[in-house]
Amino acid sequence: MTTKLEQAMSATGARVEALMSGLLVVHEGPEQTLWAAMRYGCLNGGKRLRPFLVCESARLFGAADVPALRTAAAVELIHCYSLIHDDLPAMDNSDLRRGRPTVHRQFNDAVAVLAGDGLLTMAFEVLADPETHPDPGVRCALVAALAGAAGPVGMVGGQMMDLVAETTRFDLAETTRLQRGKTGALIGFSAEAGAILGEARPDERAALGAYARDLGLAFQIADDLLDVEGSAVDIGKPVGQDAAAGKATFVSLLGIGEARARAAALADQSARHLDRFGDKADHLRAVARFVIERRS
Amino acid sequence: MTTKLEQAMSATGARVEALMSGLLVVHEGPEQTLWAAMRYGCLNGGKRLRPFLVCESARLFGAADVPALRTAAAVELIHCYSLIHDDLPAMDNSDLRRGRPTVHRQFNDAVAVLAGDGLLTMAFEVLADPETHPDPGVRCALVAALAGAAGPVGMVGGQMMDLVAETTRFDLAETTRLQRGKTGALIGFSAEAGAILGEARPDERAALGAYARDLGLAFQIADDLLDVEGSAVDIGKPVGQDAAAGKATFVSLLGIGEARARAAALADQSARHLDRFGDKADHLRAVARFVIERRS
Repeated sequence: MTTKLEQAMSATGARVEALMSGLLVVHEGPEQTLWAAMRYGCLNGGKRLRPFLVCESARLFGAADVPALRTAAAVELIHCYSLIHDDLPAMDNSDLRRGRPTVHRQFNDAVAVLAGDGLLTMAFEVLADPETHPDPGVRCALVAALAGAAGPVGMVGGQMMDLVAETTRFDLAETTRLQRGKTGALIGFSAEAGAILGEARPDERAALGAYARDLGLAFQIADDLLDVEGSAVDIGKPVGQDAAAGKATFVSLLGIGEARARAAALADQSARHLDRFGDKADHLRAVARFVIERRS
Repeated sequence: MTTKLEQAMSATGARVEALMSGLLVVHEGPEQTLWAAMRYGCLNGGKRLRPFLVCESARLFGAADVPALRTAAAVELIHCYSLIHDDLPAMDNSDLRRGRPTVHRQFNDAVAVLAGDGLLTMAFEVLADPETHPDPGVRCALVAALAGAAGPVGMVGGQMMDLVAETTRFDLAETTRLQRGKTGALIGFSAEAGAILGEARPDERAALGAYARDLGLAFQIADDLLDVEGSAVDIGKPVGQDAAAGKATFVSLLGIGEARARAAALADQSARHLDRFGDKADHLRAVARFVIERRS
């Protein structure tokens, strides 16, 4: 039932992946392992959800293709760096990602640290480049928003809370705040990026922000459900890790039934923030259903 | 004999440190350890050489104080993140930095990874902020130049070469290229940043770039000499590590005498690139002597 959406996501994903591949052309020499590791950590058939949000939100305001694709690539570079560092032995100590050895297992820990650092840095180089938008004011707004979302008050702060959650039992409010940082902030940037690129009105940007906030939480609750109910083969990484680590999740806090109901309610609510955009937002509405119905 | 320079460096360092301290105000909550670690890794009495280069090069073109100080803080955030990640067990595995336990020893490896990621991300947030310069074109130029210098073709690439140098014997050309990336790129950005802020002519920016290239290499040769001849108490970290690791250094490749002569020649040469700037560049000239005469 999500075939049309999946086709659109896959088409956008392929274009963004081609652009990333061009950005990550291997530089020969002693440093070529760094480039190989960055490619390995990025060009691995991810869902490219965040790039899709960027491109679809950009379409609402008639923003041009290249700016949207380059912004999408920048967000995905950040997302991929965060997975590489998150998988490190010092962090989640994960051996598998999308069905393949993680970067530090395929290369080594030091290369994984540097590959993450390199991707994070390149994301801002991509955004600041005049190719991303002719107006430097727009480019600076993208850099500021992405850095805010990815940094200590956003994603990195959420990662820190996630570390603390290993030894402290979080309640629902703290778990929600953790996830708003860890996954919500970057999803939020992705949905708002189209409004920045299209120089939309503040209320239009705010509507996309509200959509993303509900979407991000629905996404995370669905993730917690998959960790309990999903198959390691479908997901490409081990399941049951949060429960084994004794971490609070939306499922452990709410129970499976209530968690599923809440994810569905949030998905509905997120779609309603898009009413003003009419048919043009159909893909974004479909994403809201997709994130709670996905199997991986 | 460097007293006047040291006073100026110390005054600039204090102003930049105050600005960094304001940027790194601890956010209360489960993530406060992240902020504590970022502060610990940054506010530790470093020499602040890179900030000084930014502020002094900005002065050549009459750039305003706040833009220079904020750009200086951004470079130092990047420098400090690179030290935190470089000290990790997966990398250099260093226990001491500036006479204190390294970030991963004071906190833990996971917090050190995240603190580095957070500082790296914040550097771009600082540059993209309108407070850094009223002209978004200048801010974008700073973001692009810093990301280029800090990323895979700059500092991170140099770090990767440094890993390879542990198992491959580099010759003089490769060692030079390694150091141009690992330390030279960020020093180069620092000296050119003033030209970007002051919207200097391309040939003026190029002169500062040439100054920085020679200065960076002189700095690194002096570092290699300190690793052989220096005192661990003065330097605040163990000495003799490169030799113990069997890594090629300028000293192992050239011998002590030739290395010292080359550092002195490079320092002289770097100062000559500043001839066109007259007395205003006296501090920058003094820096060239300082880097080869320092004891730590």
